[in-house]
Amino acid sequence: MANEPDRRDRSAHPVTMRDVARVAGVSVATVSHVVNDKAGARIGAAARERVRQAIDELGYRPNMLAKNLVRGRSRFIGLVADAIATTPFAGQIIQGAQKEAWKHGFVLLVANTEGDREAEDEAIAMMLEHQVRGILYSTWYHRAVDTPAALGETTAVLVDCYSPDGQFPAIVPDEVGGGRTATELLLAAGHRRIAFVNAAEPSPAQEGRLRGYREALADAGIAFDDELVLAVHDEQDGGYEAGRTVLQRGATAVFCYNDRIAMGLYDRLREQGVSIPGELAVVGFDNQEIIAAHLRPPLSTVALPHYELGAAGVRVLLGLEEVPDGEPLLVACPPVSRQSV
Amino acid sequence: MANEPDRRDRSAHPVTMRDVARVAGVSVATVSHVVNDKAGARIGAAARERVRQAIDELGYRPNMLAKNLVRGRSRFIGLVADAIATTPFAGQIIQGAQKEAWKHGFVLLVANTEGDREAEDEAIAMMLEHQVRGILYSTWYHRAVDTPAALGETTAVLVDCYSPDGQFPAIVPDEVGGGRTATELLLAAGHRRIAFVNAAEPSPAQEGRLRGYREALADAGIAFDDELVLAVHDEQDGGYEAGRTVLQRGATAVFCYNDRIAMGLYDRLREQGVSIPGELAVVGFDNQEIIAAHLRPPLSTVALPHYELGAAGVRVLLGLEEVPDGEPLLVACPPVSRQSV
Repeated sequence: MANEPDRRDRSAHPVTMRDVARVAGVSVATVSHVVNDKAGARIGAAARERVRQAIDELGYRPNMLAKNLVRGRSRFIGLVADAIATTPFAGQIIQGAQKEAWKHGFVLLVANTEGDREAEDEAIAMMLEHQVRGILYSTWYHRAVDTPAALGETTAVLVDCYSPDGQFPAIVPDEVGGGRTATELLLAAGHRRIAFVNAAEPSPAQEGRLRGYREALADAGIAFDDELVLAVHDEQDGGYEAGRTVLQRGATAVFCYNDRIAMGLYDRLREQGVSIPGELAVVGFDNQEIIAAHLRPPLSTVALPHYELGAAGVRVLLGLEEVPDGEPLLVACPPVSRQSV
Repeated sequence: MANEPDRRDRSAHPVTMRDVARVAGVSVATVSHVVNDKAGARIGAAARERVRQAIDELGYRPNMLAKNLVRGRSRFIGLVADAIATTPFAGQIIQGAQKEAWKHGFVLLVANTEGDREAEDEAIAMMLEHQVRGILYSTWYHRAVDTPAALGETTAVLVDCYSPDGQFPAIVPDEVGGGRTATELLLAAGHRRIAFVNAAEPSPAQEGRLRGYREALADAGIAFDDELVLAVHDEQDGGYEAGRTVLQRGATAVFCYNDRIAMGLYDRLREQGVSIPGELAVVGFDNQEIIAAHLRPPLSTVALPHYELGAAGVRVLLGLEEVPDGEPLLVACPPVSRQSV
């Protein structure tokens, strides 16, 4: 490449503001004012343009650390996550937060803590030292959290979790609405005897999705039958175990608490020679692509809105979006139709 | 909480170095020297101790931006990733890099780019502006990359990818060794007619795993039979389609290019009433937990060493580990035995 040596040189001896000033024929102070977009500095349009051209020509990179010091605050937003970068399906929270942060000129500092309180404290201290504008505190599944005390030292927003005392604004999936949506996918296909294979462990998702299921049935004029609600371990083995009971109780359709349960249920149905959706229609929850899109037949499900949770977190942090008074902001869980209904 | 108001006050009016100096009864310069660990500054042990105590008492947080400026370099390492925070199984690269970075006093700046060149350039520019010590450039699966030009402006290390011109040190999984390991799991169980359901698309994994398979067979004195090597789409549908052929060709065991292919193969075998591992032993690759650990029976496989790739990337970046001359550093892919062999 023709300009390779040039680029190399630049790396060894970084271009300074002084270089820019020399090429543009202005003072270093003028360059500084243009670079830092200083309010109140009177610089003519022509001089400003010459500075911009010189910056382009020389490949000058302003020192952000110095810029931040001048402005008295950083352009960082922190994201403290228990495991979302390392669990299969909530990385979209990071993606959503990052894209939204960039849009507003902020950079995301991400720290994974694996839920370890000491690692959390360390991450938050690091972020406070870097004078972040605020911190998103996020979990990989929707739950109540006991927030670390240091969060109180900055603007904090909880993402995919909430603190029971309401100390911080929180953004969570609308589990009730999602449970409704899942049930309605089956109602719309004409089913009236719909089982719900729920998780046994109480959680906002477990309680919310059940409420949504009951509300959707009630709206359709169908009496709730607790024989049709099963409580299982929320992984494949739970779905596999529930399969036989679902059939015995005469259900024609089943809403599974998550896609993993649906995957286990598929295994059992195949063993029993039951066809999906012909003999039993199935809807999952989470839209865990690697499973849902690749089961046979592909699984209709309801998506957790991870991307949107992260993006909304940044907007609330920056004061661009409001949360309801004392309540978490609910983000809708949209249906994803495939071929199991 | 009794100390809540105090903490709040501190947040509104941050503790300064001057406050620390007053409480410790030393000059601001002394505090600065202690905080910045300035080489050559002569400060008595007693004064140093008083400063430390005052810092603890007041909850003083040194301004890292200022500290970095003083030292002339930052404590950041950048990680530019195409999609590893948002794909199901490579987030461990982030985790490994982060833990290793923290161990050496560095903070990881993570940017996901979804492979978009413009987003990459923006992320790299942001990192250069923050004067990162260097940048890890990583992909979510092992492949050759055409690196962005801006990477040449800093110390860069490629993780789970490599540049064909060898411009940067690279760290990748040992695909050949992994292919050997997978095949040896089946050989050790007494199998001699072992099929390999490979990906159709050429890639380092596709070529390397095949070579490992061939080497393991040769070492066991088994002639290579190209009838036993199938090339399929590398997702569940590919495994499903291959299932019938694998059986027709009389294999008693099959090594699948990845766990997704194994999942599809399981579906076909179940339909044909073939038991695993009784009638056909199966080994996968990747150790994609959410699939491998939850198939029926749980899948024996070979793990991609994502955590170790990220950690090694940081060590190479910091000069703590060497890469072979002109060759990528290979990280071993360990076997994970479950119940399908």
